[in-house]
Amino acid sequence: MPDGGSGTSAPVLLRADERAVATLTLNRPGARNGLSLALLAALRSALEEIAADDTIRCVVIRAEGPVFCAGHDLKEITGHFGDRDGGQAFFADSMARCAQVMQAIPALPQPVIASVQGMATAAGCQLATACDLVVAADAARFCTPGVEIGLFCSTPAVPLSRAVPRKAAMEMLLTAEPIGAEEARRIGLVNRIVPRDALDEETAALAARIAGRSALAVQLGKRTFYHQAGLPLADAYAAAAAAMVENLLAEDAAEGIGAFLAKRAPEWRHR
Amino acid sequence: MPDGGSGTSAPVLLRADERAVATLTLNRPGARNGLSLALLAALRSALEEIAADDTIRCVVIRAEGPVFCAGHDLKEITGHFGDRDGGQAFFADSMARCAQVMQAIPALPQPVIASVQGMATAAGCQLATACDLVVAADAARFCTPGVEIGLFCSTPAVPLSRAVPRKAAMEMLLTAEPIGAEEARRIGLVNRIVPRDALDEETAALAARIAGRSALAVQLGKRTFYHQAGLPLADAYAAAAAAMVENLLAEDAAEGIGAFLAKRAPEWRHR
Amino acid sequence: MPDGGSGTSAPVLLRADERAVATLTLNRPGARNGLSLALLAALRSALEEIAADDTIRCVVIRAEGPVFCAGHDLKEITGHFGDRDGGQAFFADSMARCAQVMQAIPALPQPVIASVQGMATAAGCQLATACDLVVAADAARFCTPGVEIGLFCSTPAVPLSRAVPRKAAMEMLLTAEPIGAEEARRIGLVNRIVPRDALDEETAALAARIAGRSALAVQLGKRTFYHQAGLPLADAYAAAAAAMVENLLAEDAAEGIGAFLAKRAPEWRHR
Repeated sequence: MPDGGSGTSAPVLLRADERAVATLTLNRPGARNGLSLALLAALRSALEEIAADDTIRCVVIRAEGPVFCAGHDLKEITGHFGDRDGGQAFFADSMARCAQVMQAIPALPQPVIASVQGMATAAGCQLATACDLVVAADAARFCTPGVEIGLFCSTPAVPLSRAVPRKAAMEMLLTAEPIGAEEARRIGLVNRIVPRDALDEETAALAARIAGRSALAVQLGKRTFYHQAGLPLADAYAAAAAAMVENLLAEDAAEGIGAFLAKRAPEWRHR
Repeated sequence: MPDGGSGTSAPVLLRADERAVATLTLNRPGARNGLSLALLAALRSALEEIAADDTIRCVVIRAEGPVFCAGHDLKEITGHFGDRDGGQAFFADSMARCAQVMQAIPALPQPVIASVQGMATAAGCQLATACDLVVAADAARFCTPGVEIGLFCSTPAVPLSRAVPRKAAMEMLLTAEPIGAEEARRIGLVNRIVPRDALDEETAALAARIAGRSALAVQLGKRTFYHQAGLPLADAYAAAAAAMVENLLAEDAAEGIGAFLAKRAPEWRHR
Repeated sequence: MPDGGSGTSAPVLLRADERAVATLTLNRPGARNGLSLALLAALRSALEEIAADDTIRCVVIRAEGPVFCAGHDLKEITGHFGDRDGGQAFFADSMARCAQVMQAIPALPQPVIASVQGMATAAGCQLATACDLVVAADAARFCTPGVEIGLFCSTPAVPLSRAVPRKAAMEMLLTAEPIGAEEARRIGLVNRIVPRDALDEETAALAARIAGRSALAVQLGKRTFYHQAGLPLADAYAAAAAAMVENLLAEDAAEGIGAFLAKRAPEWRHR
């Protein structure tokens, strides 16, 4: 798959698996890792494969080069303004494909950690925000600058408004000003900040910690978390209590509780 | 319209337009800018006029005097305890009028910035909280003290509980203790804190920045933001993706993207 | 009721009333205040009694010993893995009983303050999070470590995801790492941090402050707060405006407003 930015034929997305952690690397550094249709398709395929792969228990999304992700590929967009329909069919298809990828992240059975080394802009900020956890290098920045080009970041606003306080989201969207890692952590967009040269190692340690747990418990828990979050309180408790019972009846809970009471390390069946 | 507090006939609300920014000034300083029915009516009229005025692209709400706004006019309320119905009809009408104004702010096409120089209390705190963004002087304070007078701040709780974490809102509502600008920023109620003598200038700079963008993009974005915020994730993405397509098909997006790629300043049609 | 941990016959839950504040003390220090069925039943009974007791205007939940609450009683759980149904009926019943207690706290007419002196784990963290306000000693810690034992903290996630930003909740749930009082305050889980030896006194002062207000106003306000929080904005304003009118028509509002305007202390009828 050619990288429009660099002209080489390197794949736009790399996948490397190690000890139950799949690491996906955005690999269009010459195009600031812009989310071309090819890259969106590669992300979608990779997430579909991982969803069906029970050897993977945690996912990391990271990026090659100085920029994490600059959002949609603007040159792809401008190429369709001259379509007979003004680009409508192409834009609708592109937005649907992007929204599919973004929704596939919380819907993925395994937890997903964004590892953000540099600037995350527009749909690139959305990609990081859509992940379950975000580890950021101290130089990372986050920005929803659509208003600068007459195109409000309405889709990035979807996960952003669910991750941070409403006025903080509105400030990012209306001002287009980038925020640094500290401010992103202050408002709830980032979980952890680490020095740039420790980013891969710290992300890997966090991923390994999650991957070492019972996959059954983690995956049932992640699914239940997002399901209950939008429900009225009584329905949320009913859904969560049902998940607890299901979890308790699984072998891994008996093993985990038994190991805990016996002060030994558990041996998960579902790992 | 007479100002019940000062006895003069100065209008209770001032409007000044400059470079596409409408500034509304609460002008009952002698009555701590209490939200009398006259002031609520003036706010409603002004917001209706601005909604229909395509020369205005951003709104500032500020206040004259040391107090931002002390909430409902208690003397108006006590004057109706002796009504045949104990005030029921008057109170229901007053609350409906107040709620209309508060809902008109997020429903307004243009972004609204509260510029808070002093104490914002009860419905005055609600007025600031209902705005899209809040700039506060370092001496600004926020308080929902209704329980002090046997009248829980239930309507202020509506925007407050949507702006800040739940326990922070409950603490303000149950304790009636004022919080300062720093604490208000910490919990998400305030976007920016500036020195008192720089407040008007900093608010104007923020408003000018927003007013300089494509009105079409900003207004579509604001409308979509609040619409999607309450929807389930898949519906939110569908609504936001549709807004993106609509935005991409508008002239301003073609102009904005073209200007960005050509490294020139955009010239908005919808400004 | 015997305390499984210490072997004595001390009650698992203590109640002490003083000046309209009911203090409930978890009293299984030898079992890290684990939420046995007996303790859940005692909490439920106590909350039901308090709900019907109009002499009580605020509730404190605190704990005896170094641990606030370690969550479900794991030994009770393991005792049922050998049931004919693998424990399903017992687990479903236990989870339902626990969820009833947790929902009884926001549903209680009176405000509830958690006073957390030590570690609050799993359903113990849930118990603190379910309270309206949380006062923490500086040594308090909060943890949802279920994944360590193959049992994701899905029910603790219900109040946690409603109290703190989503990524902060996911980090606690996926990593099982305890957070300290400062971090808990940063994310919105804790309202106030006080030195350990001032915890009881500071909690009592906060409770007294709340108990000194009109019970009618406080209880109508608490009920309306949680009711409106999950509604669309227009419905939330309608519900809150109706509550304001009901509150205004009550004697305590006339008394409170009158006392405020006359600069005297109010005398509540509903206290």
